[in-house]
Order: sequence, then structure tokens, then C-alpha cells
Amino acid sequence: MKIVVVGGVAAGASVAARARRLDEDAEIILFERGHHVSFANCGLPYHIGNVIKDRERLLVQTPESLRELLDIDARIAHEVTSIDPAAKTVTVKDVDTGEQYTEAYDALALCPGANAVHIPIPGIDAPQVRVLRRIGDMDKIKALVDRETEQAARGERGAMRAVVVGAGYIGLEMAESLHHRGVQVTVVEAADQILPPVDREIATPVMNHLRTRGIDVRVGASAAAIAQQADGSVKVELSTNAFIDADLVIMSVGVRPATELAKAAGLELGPHGGIKVDDHMRTSDPSIWAAGDAVETPHPVLPGTYLTPLAGPANRQGRIVADNICGRDSVYTFTQGTSVVKVFDMVAGGTGATERQLKAAGIAYRAAHVHPSGHAGYYPGTAMMHLKVLFDPETGRVLGGQASGFDGVDKRLDVLAMAVREKLTVFDLEEVELAYAPPFGSAKDPVNMAGFVASNTIRGDIKLWYPQEFPAATEGARIVDVRTPQEYELWHIPGAVNVPIGEFRERSRDWDKNVPVRLYCAVGFRSYLAERILDQRGFADARTLSGGANTFRAWHE
Amino acid sequence: MKIVVVGGVAAGASVAARARRLDEDAEIILFERGHHVSFANCGLPYHIGNVIKDRERLLVQTPESLRELLDIDARIAHEVTSIDPAAKTVTVKDVDTGEQYTEAYDALALCPGANAVHIPIPGIDAPQVRVLRRIGDMDKIKALVDRETEQAARGERGAMRAVVVGAGYIGLEMAESLHHRGVQVTVVEAADQILPPVDREIATPVMNHLRTRGIDVRVGASAAAIAQQADGSVKVELSTNAFIDADLVIMSVGVRPATELAKAAGLELGPHGGIKVDDHMRTSDPSIWAAGDAVETPHPVLPGTYLTPLAGPANRQGRIVADNICGRDSVYTFTQGTSVVKVFDMVAGGTGATERQLKAAGIAYRAAHVHPSGHAGYYPGTAMMHLKVLFDPETGRVLGGQASGFDGVDKRLDVLAMAVREKLTVFDLEEVELAYAPPFGSAKDPVNMAGFVASNTIRGDIKLWYPQEFPAATEGARIVDVRTPQEYELWHIPGAVNVPIGEFRERSRDWDKNVPVRLYCAVGFRSYLAERILDQRGFADARTLSGGANTFRAWHE
Ligand SMILES: Cc1cc2nc3c(=O)[nH]c(=O)nc-3n(C[C@H](O)[C@H](O)[C@H](O)COP(=O)(O)OP(=O)(O)OC[C@H]3O[C@@H](n4cnc5c(N)ncnc54)[C@H](O)[C@@H]3O)c2cc1C
Ligand SMILES: Cc1cc2nc3c(=O)[nH]c(=O)nc-3n(C[C@H](O)[C@H](O)[C@H](O)COP(=O)(O)OP(=O)(O)OC[C@H]3O[C@@H](n4cnc5c(N)ncnc54)[C@H](O)[C@@H]3O)c2cc1C
Ligand SMILES: CC(C)(COP(=O)(O)OP(=O)(O)OC[C@H]1O[C@@H](n2cnc3c(N)ncnc32)[C@H](O)[C@@H]1OP(=O)(O)O)[C@@H](O)C(=O)NCCC(=O)NCCS
Ligand SMILES: CC(C)(COP(=O)(O)OP(=O)(O)OC[C@H]1O[C@@H](n2cnc3c(N)ncnc32)[C@H](O)[C@@H]1OP(=O)(O)O)[C@@H](O)C(=O)NCCC(=O)NCCS
Repeated sequence: MKIVVVGGVAAGASVAARARRLDEDAEIILFERGHHVSFANCGLPYHIGNVIKDRERLLVQTPESLRELLDIDARIAHEVTSIDPAAKTVTVKDVDTGEQYTEAYDALALCPGANAVHIPIPGIDAPQVRVLRRIGDMDKIKALVDRETEQAARGERGAMRAVVVGAGYIGLEMAESLHHRGVQVTVVEAADQILPPVDREIATPVMNHLRTRGIDVRVGASAAAIAQQADGSVKVELSTNAFIDADLVIMSVGVRPATELAKAAGLELGPHGGIKVDDHMRTSDPSIWAAGDAVETPHPVLPGTYLTPLAGPANRQGRIVADNICGRDSVYTFTQGTSVVKVFDMVAGGTGATERQLKAAGIAYRAAHVHPSGHAGYYPGTAMMHLKVLFDPETGRVLGGQASGFDGVDKRLDVLAMAVREKLTVFDLEEVELAYAPPFGSAKDPVNMAGFVASNTIRGDIKLWYPQEFPAATEGARIVDVRTPQEYELWHIPGAVNVPIGEFRERSRDWDKNVPVRLYCAVGFRSYLAERILDQRGFADARTLSGGANTFRAWHE
Repeated sequence: MKIVVVGGVAAGASVAARARRLDEDAEIILFERGHHVSFANCGLPYHIGNVIKDRERLLVQTPESLRELLDIDARIAHEVTSIDPAAKTVTVKDVDTGEQYTEAYDALALCPGANAVHIPIPGIDAPQVRVLRRIGDMDKIKALVDRETEQAARGERGAMRAVVVGAGYIGLEMAESLHHRGVQVTVVEAADQILPPVDREIATPVMNHLRTRGIDVRVGASAAAIAQQADGSVKVELSTNAFIDADLVIMSVGVRPATELAKAAGLELGPHGGIKVDDHMRTSDPSIWAAGDAVETPHPVLPGTYLTPLAGPANRQGRIVADNICGRDSVYTFTQGTSVVKVFDMVAGGTGATERQLKAAGIAYRAAHVHPSGHAGYYPGTAMMHLKVLFDPETGRVLGGQASGFDGVDKRLDVLAMAVREKLTVFDLEEVELAYAPPFGSAKDPVNMAGFVASNTIRGDIKLWYPQEFPAATEGARIVDVRTPQEYELWHIPGAVNVPIGEFRERSRDWDKNVPVRLYCAVGFRSYLAERILDQRGFADARTLSGGANTFRAWHE
């Protein structure tokens, strides 16, 4: 058995490693066109930020260690330039020498990853404009940052300035990393929010946090042109007609699957342009498998297949490819897109479908927002999180979950990821028994809380209204703020009257039961208590603002 | 509808609060014999430790706030002294005035919690001997600690000394809290390990951590007698004949359900002495429900019912009691005992069944040990964790999970808790898609890793041997340490030969295939690679030490 692997990082190295463990006698050749195999892509921003000080730590394996541990023939700086599926051969070019040769395979694993999206605007090829995908990209950006920040420290120039185009995970990690280095950072995002994997009201607190840290965040603005300037900097022109001077521009507007080889070999592609694979990660050619950023995979909630360029799926897909190549029957079910990012002191992420995706797919859903603290409020070191659960309005099935906050966000995402994967319902979330001690959670965990509210919605015990329904949902309604007068003073929804919850039973006694009531408080708890009172008194249409003033403000900001 | 609740903290306050939301017209009376309702029991050690500085933070609700928010008639310092189930009345005593009266109920919720186990040894009633259950207990201990540590700080006396009897969660939280206050602490535990909710090899690293922090931990030792001394201190005599001088003794040897009322009223009890309830949390009397530390509940894995005194279950059971009292059909399935504790910089906990419990119950199981880092090793601030998964050797169902470590332990416990609850298998753990970015995890999460190893065990790709099988399992076998010579030098299993993994393929070529081989490395990964080589070469009995030298040493220490 001769196994050839194209691409030597997350998916590719995983295929090779697992294949060796399953087949001690196979010949395993790994081609990597770059100069490093098996490196920690995800660590690249942090080495630039000097958080990961030792560059060597990013090199998880080397060709030597792969040889020694796993008897893998890893050839770096070797690019596979074509595949002949009929002959079962690949053509390989030694990148350094230009030498070409063919190599036969019994099984071929395509793990070429993805390439940064290149937007065709004037000036995009300027040397100050960079993407971050590989060790070499990192080295160049870091060298520039080292040089310019040292010059600035010596007073030989002003502070270094960077524009990060694209406010996805990598963009924000770069913004933070550059900021750590003393660089003045502007983040430019074409959408009306940062962080596409979460919805607007979950992203807003993170945007505000970035701003308090001195990052200039511009949403609804895209880079339109980049012009060289005499002093060696560039001027970035935005779609909004604003101009920003910069010494470095990081383009992080997404990736595209690397499918040149697959296309040329006549392999089928999916609707989003990724390599099409079956549930065994096999391509349309029975001797060729594929894994990682280059493939499309099903989603647990949405119909169709998607590109989901994440390291965990790439690694696990690689393992499954090896299983199947080696004659095992291993199925890959779906990628749910569980992801998380650290943004200074905040953490945000999601799993499953977002509200935007559900809407676009025409899937019925409802949302519940809660704002519990990461752990018991009386134990130091915690803060409010913004937690959103999307669920089927009939069955309660959890369709997606998102959160942003400070402590304990990643943990709740993992629990919600389990719920999405296992097709659990919000009724299950009410019951889950999670680890509680004051430094770690609450007796009713944030996930339980989200389960309570969502389940109450389905049971009809609470009827929610949402920030995006404002002002329509409040027309002709009595808008009631049940917080304290102090809270009301500081901010309230236009048109709201203040009836603090402690006085609510009395003061609502003679309200007309046929006038709709739109209740809200800070997070939804007190207005829920108020709604229960009105509901039981026979009010026709009393509703609680999902997530209260917190979610409302995050949505409308 | 008139609802009477006995006990006003976790379960009781939850019953009352939820009942109000479901029934605005019910009369709800809450009797609490202590002077506080709805306080954070779990925070008590941390106020003594000055970590929670503001005592008021522990009072989650007060009778006034319960009245204002929820129209609940909460009567503190009112003890229910008997129940007349036939008449549907309770007798109540005002603790402060001694006044008695009866109160009728339509539905009664018994939430009296648990009392500290009192071990009948000489001197146990000395004023220096204390338990920690309520605010009053905390106040007295804190006053003593404040006084004596201040005296010590002024040089008026030597350092304050405390003995904590019992190394469960509360005992260890107290040890840490007292240590924070400058108290010299000895922990005495009768079992041969600390932390009963986890197995020995998971507990040992925590014990070592306590010792490095200067806590004197004595396992296999119980308090046998306590003698007053002339200087106001006591001498604690241990079963090992050792003596320890102490100014304070904290007894934390477990709790017993408070069942006096239930027993006197003729309610059925369970096999462990807790109140027996059905799956609607209803007792043997149809008008009486019960919840919290006082009840026995089923377990997801073990047969029978158990006492599991934890705050999360108490709160959720209370909510379910209210549902059923108010005519809803709400089922409580089981308590799986998910728990966690912070011990200085370490975190430990478990969910589901322990190995000891499975063995005692005669349930077939297998264990897998992995030692991944809490997040990507190359990103700062992480350390190795000890993660153990117990599973059904045939179906792979996850029966229990345990972990100790530094970062990310609580998160993996929650994921494993979901697995136990949802009857997932270790094959599911291989596939779960958890949130990954370098500060939070690894592309293959620790839970995936545990899933890989456990699944490999069932598939026969790895055959494990365990520390507790030493030396029996190595008799007549070739014991091979596949670590580096440097690692081997520092420590190795007696009788092991060193064949580093890089030389393993060559050097094992002419070994006799019929001689058993017992492989190990630091954690199991390299010896697994070695085993795959031998397995495929037809070795009859090659095995990998589960968890490697790490688990071995934790077990045998
Ligand atoms: C800066 C950065 C941060 C990231 N952070 C995270 C994160 O926090 N969490 C997360 O889940 N994911 C993160 N990712 C994404 C993650 O790294 C990828 O999803 C993952 O590496 C994909 O694995 P892959 O094997 O498909 O592709 P890659 O890891 O990109 O490997 C593909 C390899 O194939 C090689 N190749 C391509 N074509 C050929 C050819 N013809 N011949 C030979 N070799 C070829 C390429 O040179 C490349 O090295 C991050 C990515 C980057 C760049
Ligand atoms: C120091 C400490 C730390 C803890 N840490 C944790 C932790 O980190 N995680 C965790 O999950 N759990 C923890 N627990 C356990 C948790 O607090 C309990 O499981 C939970 O409080 C049980 O709730 P309950 O309502 O059954 O009992 P309780 O909260 O104890 O309340 C019972 C109440 O009933 C009252 N009562 C009893 N009899 C009568 C009567 N006849 N009339 C009137 N009132 C009566 C009592 O005075 C008591 O206030 C801890 C407990 C303590 C003491
Ligand atoms: C490291 C890499 C080469 C994969 O190599 P790998 O040999 O599969 O190694 P891992 O460290 O993932 O270990 C997993 C294997 O070890 C086994 N293992 C792990 N711990 C074990 C233990 N304690 N005992 C026994 N076996 C163990 C697992 O079962 C699994 O083997 P299997 O797949 O045959 O079941 C590949 O993941 C890689 O290149 N990573 C870096 C690039 C990358 O992922 N980038 C994106 C993220 S930054
Ligand atoms: C606080 C206590 C009285 C319970 O009160 P509670 O009113 O049920 O309040 P919680 O804060 O738990 O909130 C849960 C309720 O608010 C609702 N809620 C929470 N956030 C909400 C939001 N954002 N929007 C709408 N509703 C919300 C939930 O649905 C739930 O209501 P439900 O049970 O009717 O579904 C009780 O838990 C207690 O006494 N705790 C302290 C003692 C203790 O637990 N000790 C041990 C641990 S230290």
C-alpha cells in the first residue's frame, strides 16, 4: 500500500500519522510545498504579538520527527502540481530546485487547505499589504513589526500604524497582537458587525471592548484602494471615503479552498467551490480522499454542505481519511462550526447555526437571550456574559448557541456544542447537571438558565419580544420598564414608563387587559416576573424583551 | 392553594420562587429555622478566607426581597417541628420566642437539607471543634480566625493552627481558605486518598499540590480524640497515634440528610436514609414533596438511589417540586454527581460513576487515562491535566469522567457530564466538535483524545495495562520504557529496559513474539506507537500502560 498525502499540516499530517498507526507496512509520502510541516497555524498571530515568544514552539512536528516517530517520508518544499487519476500518479515539483518527478499512489489524500481571499482593489499588491497563513507570512510581518516598533521606541519615527481588513477571528487576533506590540490599529469590516460566526447583539459587546482598548473599529466599511505614499507608508481608502495611513495592512477577509489540483483532475466540487466528499471523506474518484479547509461538509442544522475552515474538523477529518484508506469504515457526520476567539479580556464564539443563517435558510427558529455571570456573582473575577440560544419553536431542538463575555464563555460553548451535535432540546438544557463550585459556575448554570427561558417560551410561560422588532412591536403598547428608578434614569427605551418590580403587582392592577404590554428590565428576569403576573391576570398580550436592555442596546448600538 | 415549604435555602427557596411564577394566587409560606434564607452556602469557606470580602454578597435573597419580588411569606427563625399528614398541618416554633402554632397546607415541600456528620469521639464537643454549614457557623469560625491571626500578626502568639478532618470538597476549600489567612493547616483523611468523588490517581496530583503549598496532608488517618490543653488549644489524637496541636478543628466528614421530620411523619426513606421520592419528587404521602440534600435520587449509571448533596441538583429539584405542586408534569431523572473543586491553583472533579463505585456495583468497565494540556501547549498559561474516562468495555458507553489539573478542567468535566447524561459512547467523544483557539483548547481536544484512546481500546488497536496491576501484569514480561534516556534516568519502573521510540522499530526486530511486552512512556502516546508496531508484527501480548508513568506514579505514590 502506497499512500500519498498532499499538504502537510493539520489534515495532511493527521492522515499520515494515523495511517502509519493502522498500517505499519504502508509507504507513506507527505508532500508539503511550504518549508514546514505540521505547524501551529493558529499560533501565528500570537508569535507576532510576542505572546508566544519561542518560534520553535509553533513547529509541532518536523520531517525528522515524523520520520523517527512514524516512519513517514515527509518532503517539504515539494509541490504536487498535478494528479493523473487514471494512472494514479501525481507530478511533484521540488520548489527549491525546480526538479519535477512523478510519484505513484494506491491512495491519495488531498489536504491542500485554503488560500487567503484576494480582493482585487487598486494597490492590493503593495509590499505593506500582507496575509497571514503560513510561517513565512508570519516571519515577514513580525520582522516588519519588530523593526518599526523598535524605531518608534527609539524615537526615530511615530507609532507604527496598521489596518486590519476583515473582523473575523484571525483579523481580531491580529488586531490584538499588533496592539500588544504598540501598533495603532484600525479594523475595517464591510459587514455591519464584527465576528461573522455570531449574531450582531453578541458581537457588539466585543466591538465595544475593542474600542475601549483603543482599537479603531469601523464596521460597514471596506477597503476600496491602497495607495503608496512617499514616506513608505500606504493610504488605505475606504468605501466610506475615509482615508487611513498605515505602515502595514493585514488582509483577513476570509479564505477560499485550494481546489486547483482537484479541479484539474476532474474531481467534483460542491456548491461553495470546495472539494466534494462523501461521508467517508472520499472524493468523486474512488482512490482519492480529501480533508480539511479544502472540503465541503454537511451541517447538523442547515441543509447542504459548507466550507468550515477550522483546525479541529481538519484534524478529525484527516484521521477519518486514514481510517478509510486503511480499510476501516469511518464516517464523518458534519461540521457544526464550533469556534471561539479571545479578544483582549473578552471571549466570543458560537456553534451550530446563527440567526442570520437560519433566516436565510428559511428554518423556523426562536431565540432566547440570558446574561448570567461566568461564575457565582459573589466570588471574585466574574462578569456578565451574553448568551444566546436558537431553537426550534415546536420541538425545542437546539439549533445554535453563541456567547460573548469574560470568564466561562468557552465552556458554555462546548456544552452547547454537545447539545447541537446530539440533537438535544432546550428542555434537556434545563436539566443538564454541570460542575458547580463558586469559582466555576452557578448552581443554575448559564446553560440551565438559557434552557429555562427557552423552554418557558415553548410552554407559553413567557412570550418574548426582540430588539429588532423595535419600534414596530411597541406600537400601541404600554412599554414598561420594571427596573429601579435609578436604572431607568440612566437609560430607558423611548416611550417606556417606569414601574419597578416591587410595586408592579399594585400599580398594574387597573391596567386595561386589552392594551398590549411590552415589558423589559436589565436582562429579562424581573420583566419575566412581571409578565407572569399579567399573564395570570388575563392580559391579552404581555411580552418580555428577550435579554432585556442589555440585548436591546447591543442590537441597536 | 396554600403551599408550605420547610427550609429556605437552595431547594426550598427555589420551590417557593417557582411556585409563585406558576401560581400568582397561591399562598406561599416558607419556614426557615435559621436566621437567613437563600444564602450562598457554597461561598462560606471563601468569606472565611477573605476571598469574598463582603459578607452581604452571600445573602442572595432576604425575606424582604422574597416578599417584594415574589410575594412569598418567608419566616426566618421559624422551625417546623412536626407534620400531621392526615390533618395536612405543620407545627411551627418561633425559634427566638419559643411560641408555637400550626399552619395548614394543601401541598408541603420538605427541603430541610442535611446536617454535618458528627463522629462520636472524645472531645468532639470542645468549642474549638466546628462544622461549616450555615452563616452562623461561618461567622463564628471567621471571628476566631480574625482574632487569632491578628494576635499572631501583632506577635502576641504563634501562628494559628488548624486541623481539617475530612478531605472532601468542603474540607479542602477550608484548608485553602485558612491557609490564605496565614493559618497552619493539617488535613486528616481516613481514606487512603483525598477527594472521594475521584479515583486515587486523579486525586494524588492534588494532594501533592496541597503539600507544595505547605498543607500537611495525612491520608489513612482519622481523628480519634480531642483533648483540651491549658493554653486554650486542643490536641488532636489521630488513629495513627500522632498528635497535632490546634486552635481550630474543622469537622468536614460528610453530611447526613435531615430526615427527623419526615421520619416522624411516617414518610418512607430510601436505602441510604434519605427521603424517598418518586420521579416527580413526591414522597410516599401524596401531598408532600421533597427536594435537595434530604432526598435520594437515581443515578444514571449505578443501580439504586443515592444521596448526592449538591447545590445544582437541589435547585433544579426544587423547581420540579414546584412544577408538580402547581399541576405540571415535571420529571426528575437522576443526579449524576457532577462536581468540581478549586484547590489553590488546581482544579479537580468528576461526573458519573468512579472506578471504585463501578467495582463495588459489579459493573463491567474499562478506564483510559490521558494527560493533555488544558489548551494548546505553545500558548502560555497551560499545564498538563489528568483525565480519566470510564466506559463500558462492549458498547463504549461513558460511565464516568474525572480530571485534575490547572486550566480547562471544569470545561472537560462539563463535556463529560453531557456524555454521561446523554448515554454517549467513547466513539461519540472521538467526534465531538469543541471550541478551539490556542488560549482555550487544542485542535484535538482533551475530550477527543480520551475518546480516541478509549475507542482504540474497544477496537483492539491498543491494549492497556494499569498501574494497579503492577507488578503482577509485568511478571515474565519484557518491560519497555520508550522514553528518552534522559527521562529513563530520572525515574523508571523497576525492571524496565529503555528503548527510545525513535530506535524502537529497529531494536525490537528480533524480540520473541511470544514474550509479553509491557510498554510505557510518559503519558501513553509513544508507547501506543510502539504497541502498534508490535501488534502488526504479530506480537502475542503487547500492552501499553494507561496514562504512562504519570498515572503510574500518581497511583503508587
Ligand atoms: C492565522 C491563523 C489562525 C487560525 N486560528 C484558528 C483557530 O484559532 N481555531 C481554528 O479552529 N482554526 C484556526 N485556523 C484555521 C486552521 O489553521 C485551519 O482550519 C487548518 O489548518 C486547516 O487544515 P488543512 O490541513 O486543511 O490546511 P492547512 O493547515 O493550511 O495545510 C494545508 C497545507 O497544504 C499545503 N499545500 C497546498 N497545496 C499543495 C500542493 N499542491 N502541494 C503540496 N502542498 C500543498 C499548503 O502549503 C499548506 O501547508 C487558523 C488559521 C490561521 C491561518
Ligand atoms: C460550606 C459548603 C460549601 C458547599 N459547596 C458546594 C459547592 O461548591 N458545590 C455544590 O454543588 N454544593 C456545595 N455545597 C452543598 C450545597 O450547599 C447543598 O447541596 C445545598 O445547599 C442543598 O440545598 P438544600 O436546600 O437541600 O439544603 P440547605 O441549603 O442546607 O437548606 C436547608 C435549610 O433548611 C432549614 N431547615 C432544616 N430543617 C428545618 C425545619 N425543621 N424547619 C425550618 N427550617 C429547617 C435549614 O436551616 C437550612 O437552612 C456546599 C455546602 C456547604 C455547607
Ligand atoms: C500533530 C499531528 C501531526 C497529528 O499527529 P498524531 O500522531 O495524530 O498526534 P496527536 O498528538 O494528535 O495524538 C493523537 C493520537 O495519539 C493517541 N494518544 C494520545 N494520547 C494518548 C495516550 N495518553 N495514550 C495512548 N494513546 C494516546 C491517540 O489515540 C491518537 O491516536 P489515533 O489517532 O491512532 O487514535 C497533526 O495534528 C498536526 O500536524 N498538527 C499541527 C498542525 C495543526 O493542527 N494546525 C492547526 C491547529 S494550530
Ligand atoms: C435564588 C433562589 C431563591 C432561586 O430563585 P429564582 O427566582 O428561581 O431565581 P433564579 O435566579 O434562579 O432565576 C431563575 C428564573 O429566572 C428566569 N430567568 C433567568 N434569567 C432570565 C432572563 N434573562 N429572561 C427571562 N427569564 C429569566 C428563569 O427562567 C427562571 O424562572 P423559572 O424557574 O420560572 O423558569 C434560590 O436559588 C436560592 O435561594 N439560591 C441561593 C441558595 C443556594 O442555591 N445555595 C447553594 C448554592 S451557593
